[in-house]
Amino acid sequence: MYPLYSASGNLVAIGGAEDRKSDLDILKQVFALAPEGHDEVAVIATASGIPDEVLPDYEAAFSRLGASRVHLLGIRDRKQAAEDDTVRLIEQSGVIFFTGGDQLRLTNILGGSPVLAAIRERLDNGAVVAGTSAGAAAMPGTMIYNGAAADALRKGAVNMTFGLGLVDGLIIDSHFLERGRFTRLMEVGASNPEHLGVGLGEDAGVIIHPHGILEAIGPGHVILIDSRDLASSNIADLSMGAPVAVEHMILHAMVSGHGFDVEARRYLVPHELAAILAERR
Amino acid sequence: MYPLYSASGNLVAIGGAEDRKSDLDILKQVFALAPEGHDEVAVIATASGIPDEVLPDYEAAFSRLGASRVHLLGIRDRKQAAEDDTVRLIEQSGVIFFTGGDQLRLTNILGGSPVLAAIRERLDNGAVVAGTSAGAAAMPGTMIYNGAAADALRKGAVNMTFGLGLVDGLIIDSHFLERGRFTRLMEVGASNPEHLGVGLGEDAGVIIHPHGILEAIGPGHVILIDSRDLASSNIADLSMGAPVAVEHMILHAMVSGHGFDVEARRYLVPHELAAILAERR
Repeated sequence: MYPLYSASGNLVAIGGAEDRKSDLDILKQVFALAPEGHDEVAVIATASGIPDEVLPDYEAAFSRLGASRVHLLGIRDRKQAAEDDTVRLIEQSGVIFFTGGDQLRLTNILGGSPVLAAIRERLDNGAVVAGTSAGAAAMPGTMIYNGAAADALRKGAVNMTFGLGLVDGLIIDSHFLERGRFTRLMEVGASNPEHLGVGLGEDAGVIIHPHGILEAIGPGHVILIDSRDLASSNIADLSMGAPVAVEHMILHAMVSGHGFDVEARRYLVPHELAAILAERR
Repeated sequence: MYPLYSASGNLVAIGGAEDRKSDLDILKQVFALAPEGHDEVAVIATASGIPDEVLPDYEAAFSRLGASRVHLLGIRDRKQAAEDDTVRLIEQSGVIFFTGGDQLRLTNILGGSPVLAAIRERLDNGAVVAGTSAGAAAMPGTMIYNGAAADALRKGAVNMTFGLGLVDGLIIDSHFLERGRFTRLMEVGASNPEHLGVGLGEDAGVIIHPHGILEAIGPGHVILIDSRDLASSNIADLSMGAPVAVEHMILHAMVSGHGFDVEARRYLVPHELAAILAERR
């Protein structure tokens, strides 16, 4: 059986445009997940085309939240992704945060690098790894990149490749409600119904707890598209670009405090989520 | 039991931006549904803010398709919606077509008018009534108007009022994939799960056959959001503007030749649709 999740630490995927200046709702919850006594934060802006504009916001936000040090890591190329000094800063950090930008830049530069190996090791040892927008989309073993926003439910419209491999069993899309990306996850679900589609709205996030329990956080929505019970689709018979038919996918919208058990494919209302998290703590 | 549909003639709802100049794929199918010997077409541009730009395209298209006469009806106010001459042109027509624009203008001007009464009578007597964009959205007993495109899954974000009352049991939204309107129909479904959400993509349409059988036509997609089996939602407990949670809605994507039985809530692959339409003809 394919593993539904692999993280033994905590992952937080954020849909983009999270509040970085006032309430810091989501970033506060990310920082609170850091293991006891590990209050250094590494912010990785590899995905961003404008790291110098993005990094200071996160430096200010995490400092306000109580980080003892915030390491601002641009990591612009594969050489930098192999530097010992950078690896050491990752190893010191209790929170590792990926900014937004282009997820293909993130995987192209970090894929197979010593920095990524260090991040995986930190995750296995209890650190929290969080990412927003591209930084969220890149987390699973397989990710979406580019792809038309409008009618993506056409064969081949969604581009996919290997992601950072921090979690399996899911595919993550960001800016989901704001950019109307439902059809992207529908196409992915038609191509293979096994993997849960997680569509993150802006200023919304999902904590991926150990045991594959999802918890929605922030003021926005987390949409789930569960294709497991797909009844039929014409996708295999179509030529590229032709419209894909889909019979029966299941749709959920989670808000803060609601959850989902990926393995059991079960929606969790707040008291159910709280009970499961308490029991497994 | 609330009636699932009321049309005894044929209705065609189109998602907007249908081809009016080259293949006329959808308009051809609309015209083909006209009853034998009733080849006059009435085009009603009440919804449009630019009727003089819109009407000539339809005149050319329906003339090419074989209409003996195409009546171009601007109908700008309630006085015009009561004129005997206009009512007479409706009574002569085998096809009545609503252009796009603003569905609120359409209902505000036609609601309760002699012209609308004449249209309903024509529909009951076998004429085809078609509409695109606003002209499609306005067809059911209840319609959506305005409403934020982005994250509409917030309590009260979707504005609804009475539609033209040509069909019941459905709510219709247009430009659905292109403008990412999934959350609009999800909010409607959370507010009352009884009514099927029909999201029409551009250059896609749905024929609403007698007996509540839907048939997708055109090169685009028709998305269905079926909330009947909604398991839970927080909507009743929220303040206005707060994000709505939704547990379990069913999602389908139909392409040309696929269908749906509204009463049975059953997706119909092409051979099933063909068999049902043949049997009930």
